[in-house]
Amino acid sequence: MTLSLHKLDLRDGVVDLSHGAGSRATAQLIAELFFRHLGNPYLGRGDDGAVLPLPGFDPTRGRIVVATDAHVVTPLFFAGGDIGSLSVHGTINDVAVMGAQPLYLTASFILEEGFPLADLDRIVASMGKAAREAGVPVVAGDTKVVERGKGDGVYIATTGVGILPTGVELGGARARPGDALLVSGTLGDHGVAILSQRENLSFSAPIVSDSAALHTLVAQVLATGADIRCLRDPTRGGLAGTLHEIAQQSNVGITLRESALPIHPVVAGACELLGIDPLYIANEGKLVVVCAAQDAARVLAALRAHPLGSNAALIGIVVDDPHRFVQVDTAMGGRRIVDWLSADQLPRIC
Amino acid sequence: MTLSLHKLDLRDGVVDLSHGAGSRATAQLIAELFFRHLGNPYLGRGDDGAVLPLPGFDPTRGRIVVATDAHVVTPLFFAGGDIGSLSVHGTINDVAVMGAQPLYLTASFILEEGFPLADLDRIVASMGKAAREAGVPVVAGDTKVVERGKGDGVYIATTGVGILPTGVELGGARARPGDALLVSGTLGDHGVAILSQRENLSFSAPIVSDSAALHTLVAQVLATGADIRCLRDPTRGGLAGTLHEIAQQSNVGITLRESALPIHPVVAGACELLGIDPLYIANEGKLVVVCAAQDAARVLAALRAHPLGSNAALIGIVVDDPHRFVQVDTAMGGRRIVDWLSADQLPRIC
Repeated sequence: MTLSLHKLDLRDGVVDLSHGAGSRATAQLIAELFFRHLGNPYLGRGDDGAVLPLPGFDPTRGRIVVATDAHVVTPLFFAGGDIGSLSVHGTINDVAVMGAQPLYLTASFILEEGFPLADLDRIVASMGKAAREAGVPVVAGDTKVVERGKGDGVYIATTGVGILPTGVELGGARARPGDALLVSGTLGDHGVAILSQRENLSFSAPIVSDSAALHTLVAQVLATGADIRCLRDPTRGGLAGTLHEIAQQSNVGITLRESALPIHPVVAGACELLGIDPLYIANEGKLVVVCAAQDAARVLAALRAHPLGSNAALIGIVVDDPHRFVQVDTAMGGRRIVDWLSADQLPRIC
Repeated sequence: MTLSLHKLDLRDGVVDLSHGAGSRATAQLIAELFFRHLGNPYLGRGDDGAVLPLPGFDPTRGRIVVATDAHVVTPLFFAGGDIGSLSVHGTINDVAVMGAQPLYLTASFILEEGFPLADLDRIVASMGKAAREAGVPVVAGDTKVVERGKGDGVYIATTGVGILPTGVELGGARARPGDALLVSGTLGDHGVAILSQRENLSFSAPIVSDSAALHTLVAQVLATGADIRCLRDPTRGGLAGTLHEIAQQSNVGITLRESALPIHPVVAGACELLGIDPLYIANEGKLVVVCAAQDAARVLAALRAHPLGSNAALIGIVVDDPHRFVQVDTAMGGRRIVDWLSADQLPRIC
């Protein structure tokens, strides 16, 4: 990964909020610190989960996929969900976008002393409901408690395990110039729901997080038999962050059509008011698809045929670009570069 | 599980430190809150990890095991390890005591804003070293950052995946009256190392955490072909907590021989000074074995033949007891009941 930032200052530097924001700083911390010490062929791929062989099992039948996520969202309860349902959806989605069928989840809780048991009960109930609805049970867990002032109510780390059938080969490094880029629905709903709740803003219509489990949508897309290069869920860092990762991994550029980007008018208005760009805002129930151009129409049809994909759109194309720029063709006929944020926009969005 | 405490107060109650201490309160929180919402046949077993079928794979060849742990130990660096190595060892051990071969780990980090990158570098380096030495790579990860005062440097949640070969059937519910109880070495080293560091105590000899990966020791025990009922690593809540769990799950009593309990003299002295009982103190590299009485000698020999088991001992027997008491035959010829702690003794020990 090429990064134009200065190297991490491992002598005098400190962790700051940008390191957790899915920004360029996050990528740098991962590359220069985590990969350096933990690096191995599975971790190094830079996808949402790892694809792993299972010794003793027939490799022609499939491999397992594991993905993990810590959830530190604030507030804990928000329009459209809470940290419990989010921690189920987020990790199911990381497994699903690898092309795998999610089977099992684990959950580790870090509770702060003094946290109301009634709130914990509500969160775990929501987690159970989300897991049952998705058909992916929480099979193992752990609970730790930290002193008052050493946490923030509850943090939940979830890990997902799934099976990747042989023949499904997806990855951020597989995008090719000419490929089509699609998204399953409106952008920015989750992040703007969180932010407007934090800022106590109200709008003409309620803004609700899109938090949802995407595995059945993914299955529907894969069932088309289309040549899918890569699937992603654009969470932290938003669509822009996700596309920058793909551009880096595949050594390509990406050009978006501004007029094609599905953005809920209320979300667009809130973004204007808040001075933020919906391209950078986290989604928790949206699927980004890169596929061969000739398959774009049937992928779009498959997305739209699913309840979670009714606002799906073809939003851009992959282009040959040694600079790996992500650009937008504006409605006015111009073109602007979508930078990869180096700083934090929305901490603790998930 | 029979609990004599009052029911959890889900209306006005709050989380307290005892809920995370591996005590009776922890078991109550799990039973009355987590299991109620998340319950399923895999989670409900109450073992250290879950044993899971893999659809599409031949069930006669094996199943997968997953286990998860959040690590919140303080201090982050201690004699014999740090939160990085501990988070690798702890989860490998949870997989190993199910009788499974640990294959892969995932790690989710929750970092506090302002945490020195130099410390993070040291912790992740230690994690990488522990993973390489154990032969179990960290294959997926996640990093979140929380604001200053909402964390405590770094928390690490790890999840382990392993393969349980067909034919290995272990579980806390399989202990039978007459079975032998063994432990692989001295008790309380980890907890006393942590506590003496917190209290800034020094002793005649340094007290060092026993943090270690137990999977090769487990493999050696299983290779004996002995009739092993159950393996455990007595972490939070110590040996006493582990034995109470087994007694509950198997509906038996357990009688220990005090004179047989391996306790390092310096640890025994520290416990006296600190007013704590080594039976309740966390270990992070010790194996508890329940096996058929006639196999005790060869299990003991196998334990002692491994570098991590040189101080292994036969410490007690499983007895028929409807009260499920854990008792100690004292050196003086008496007998005392080892209660299951309802309150917290050592918060954030792991």
